Amino acid sequence: MLKTPAIVLNVKTYTEATGINAVDLARLMEKISKENDVGMAIAVQACDITRCVQEVDLPVYAQHIDPIKPGSSTGWTLPEAVKSAGAVGTLINHSEHRLILADIDICIIRTQELGLDSLVCTNNVATSKAVATFSPSMIAVEPPELIGGDISVTTADPGIVSTTVKAVQTVNKTVKILCGAGVKNGNDVVKAIELGPNWLQLASRVVKAKNKEAVLRDLISGI
Amino acid sequence: MLKTPAIVLNVKTYTEATGINAVDLARLMEKISKENDVGMAIAVQACDITRCVQEVDLPVYAQHIDPIKPGSSTGWTLPEAVKSAGAVGTLINHSEHRLILADIDICIIRTQELGLDSLVCTNNVATSKAVATFSPSMIAVEPPELIGGDISVTTADPGIVSTTVKAVQTVNKTVKILCGAGVKNGNDVVKAIELGPNWLQLASRVVKAKNKEAVLRDLISGI
Amino acid sequence: MLKTPAIVLNVKTYTEATGINAVDLARLMEKISKENDVGMAIAVQACDITRCVQEVDLPVYAQHIDPIKPGSSTGWTLPEAVKSAGAVGTLINHSEHRLILADIDICIIRTQELGLDSLVCTNNVATSKAVATFSPSMIAVEPPELIGGDISVTTADPGIVSTTVKAVQTVNKTVKILCGAGVKNGNDVVKAIELGPNWLQLASRVVKAKNKEAVLRDLISGI
Amino acid sequence: MLKTPAIVLNVKTYTEATGINAVDLARLMEKISKENDVGMAIAVQACDITRCVQEVDLPVYAQHIDPIKPGSSTGWTLPEAVKSAGAVGTLINHSEHRLILADIDICIIRTQELGLDSLVCTNNVATSKAVATFSPSMIAVEPPELIGGDISVTTADPGIVSTTVKAVQTVNKTVKILCGAGVKNGNDVVKAIELGPNWLQLASRVVKAKNKEAVLRDLISGI
Repeated sequence: MLKTPAIVLNVKTYTEATGINAVDLARLMEKISKENDVGMAIAVQACDITRCVQEVDLPVYAQHIDPIKPGSSTGWTLPEAVKSAGAVGTLINHSEHRLILADIDICIIRTQELGLDSLVCTNNVATSKAVATFSPSMIAVEPPELIGGDISVTTADPGIVSTTVKAVQTVNKTVKILCGAGVKNGNDVVKAIELGPNWLQLASRVVKAKNKEAVLRDLISGI
Repeated sequence: MLKTPAIVLNVKTYTEATGINAVDLARLMEKISKENDVGMAIAVQACDITRCVQEVDLPVYAQHIDPIKPGSSTGWTLPEAVKSAGAVGTLINHSEHRLILADIDICIIRTQELGLDSLVCTNNVATSKAVATFSPSMIAVEPPELIGGDISVTTADPGIVSTTVKAVQTVNKTVKILCGAGVKNGNDVVKAIELGPNWLQLASRVVKAKNKEAVLRDLISGI
Repeated sequence: MLKTPAIVLNVKTYTEATGINAVDLARLMEKISKENDVGMAIAVQACDITRCVQEVDLPVYAQHIDPIKPGSSTGWTLPEAVKSAGAVGTLINHSEHRLILADIDICIIRTQELGLDSLVCTNNVATSKAVATFSPSMIAVEPPELIGGDISVTTADPGIVSTTVKAVQTVNKTVKILCGAGVKNGNDVVKAIELGPNWLQLASRVVKAKNKEAVLRDLISGI
Repeated sequence: MLKTPAIVLNVKTYTEATGINAVDLARLMEKISKENDVGMAIAVQACDITRCVQEVDLPVYAQHIDPIKPGSSTGWTLPEAVKSAGAVGTLINHSEHRLILADIDICIIRTQELGLDSLVCTNNVATSKAVATFSPSMIAVEPPELIGGDISVTTADPGIVSTTVKAVQTVNKTVKILCGAGVKNGNDVVKAIELGPNWLQLASRVVKAKNKEAVLRDLISGI
């Protein structure tokens, strides 16, 4: 597990973070992470895991795994392949890649078998609590209305973070909560951490920034 | 495009072809391909494309692409990422990873935009003809009852190959037909090529063999 | 088959056409259809087929069937059940309910086995041509950008209708083409029919109208 | 809610329970239910709800609802339509019709809004506990290896029922547990009820029996 507070950056399938661009962004994060002693990880496309692991000293996550074992699953993402490529964890059930309930259970078990961190994304308090019963490493609550938008979760719906923290603790006291959408700047980061989470998940804000370094430095400025 | 007749080996998500094992198998294919001057390509998991391309001089295909453009598609397979990792083509609509009709259309267009070969898998004569109207590079017809089994397509249902060749030609004369299931040995390869296709798609027979080299050499013995 | 030109009204899952409202709308269409000697059919939710068939003398279509045979398919739509409830046809592959390619093939075969009309929805010229190779009864081409909007297909993209008609005829001369989106008023109907189709598919324009009767009468005014 | 112990019969899409056959089976259940004062309900295909409700005095369930509100969802199952047809409840997340986690949450909320019973199917102890956090009316635990087979759950894996009951109660004390697979005869029913559940879910055993009445009478013989 990363030193917390920590930031997980999901680069999705943006051009700005595909192929060599993913490596460049990971290298930038490595530099800022080390200079500031702040935990960071990058979640890249399956195709890009190997290169990021080879060239950068930063924890790399997969963006997804499928609930499969080795065999006849052409084109799906085998947890063993993600591990073999050098990832240390994976997102599961991201809002852009939802899974059926039974498969979330299987994916978390598969990460436990392989020693991968599991970061399960959820959309509200109720689904966060349900997922917590499976004991993943982390849960990132991301209200759909805040994903990719300009509104800060800590402004729009501060209750969702603290309510999620409380609801999750009624069924599982060890799972870590991430604030997973609507974190826009260093001020949001500080507020989010006050509400309970000590991890944050970010995406488009950093990836699409002209000056990625400035945005990253701003985000961690209050930690 | 590869020199034909050619063999495309889809290694699925077998342990025997994940991570370093994928690289080893690709290296073996490279050797046999060069020694015998027979066209070969390997279709590996997304996580393994980079390493195979880095270490082996053999055309690498992806096993799947998703019908997406760069952006918010966490965990899906971006055609640009596959290209960037060094793949020269991709399977589309494999029997273990079917796509809706409109998405097959989009995937083929995306491969054309990026200069990737498109190898679309189909399950019978009717769907092969339908796909041919989209003008992919290749169509691999794989009757579901023959996939992964012990029966040769050229024994069980020789008509499907020649009928598919004829049906496809009524709508598209340039698309190449692959014999995509039930090819078990060198004799099957010879018969399949007589029936029209000059490409073959293979999977478990090679990947799960104790002596992969012997199986590969047998397969190309009659070419 | 209906007397043409004909109008197929897909009522989707609008409140205005659920339960008793579906029956009322079917009854209104029956009246206008008979008074004006214009062919009409209504595509209702599976739950509503029985009541519409029992109470109204108008051809009823299902909005969807699944590619299944009787057996273990809890909660899916069995073609036999649709037939048994009294439907005379079904939409297939609607833009809100897409199917994988192999399943479109199976659904069309199942309708042929049961004597149901098959109306397959497509999104562009290329997919219309692909579907035509399966010989469904009808194809409704519906460019996604026109569905549910305020723009008439005959204004926005008149070429798509005539181009689709021509492309489909290169592979299948018997399938009927429907103009499936962007038909807003009687003028659009007249123009659409000039472009080739003699069937039209409609949805929200009628269902959500305050005065459904006026909208229906306007639509057929030019026929 | 039904008088318990009660039996919910899911007739799937079997020919023996499609159309008029569904009505006949419901009528048989009505007779046996009343004669023996045992709670019973039938879960039929969407197309068959209306007729069963019209002709038989037995609680009717839908086999599935989709996580939608009225609008543009062609061919999907609107909860309001199920309610309007006369169903009093619905299965959710059946093993043959799985839903993503967020959609299970939505479906349960939709049944609560409409006053429908919600019977959520799960595959093991862990997913049962997760679902219990959503407070559905009932959870039917059905280990996949027992569905449709010849083995009794109470013989094969008696622990799963009592363990599920206990696990669910740690997060929700009001949800009812159903024994949902592997109940074959009256003896199984008695044992299952001893293990905690007071509802049972059945399918192929009854539907495919030559003498459905004899099987039904045997099942309730020990209650």
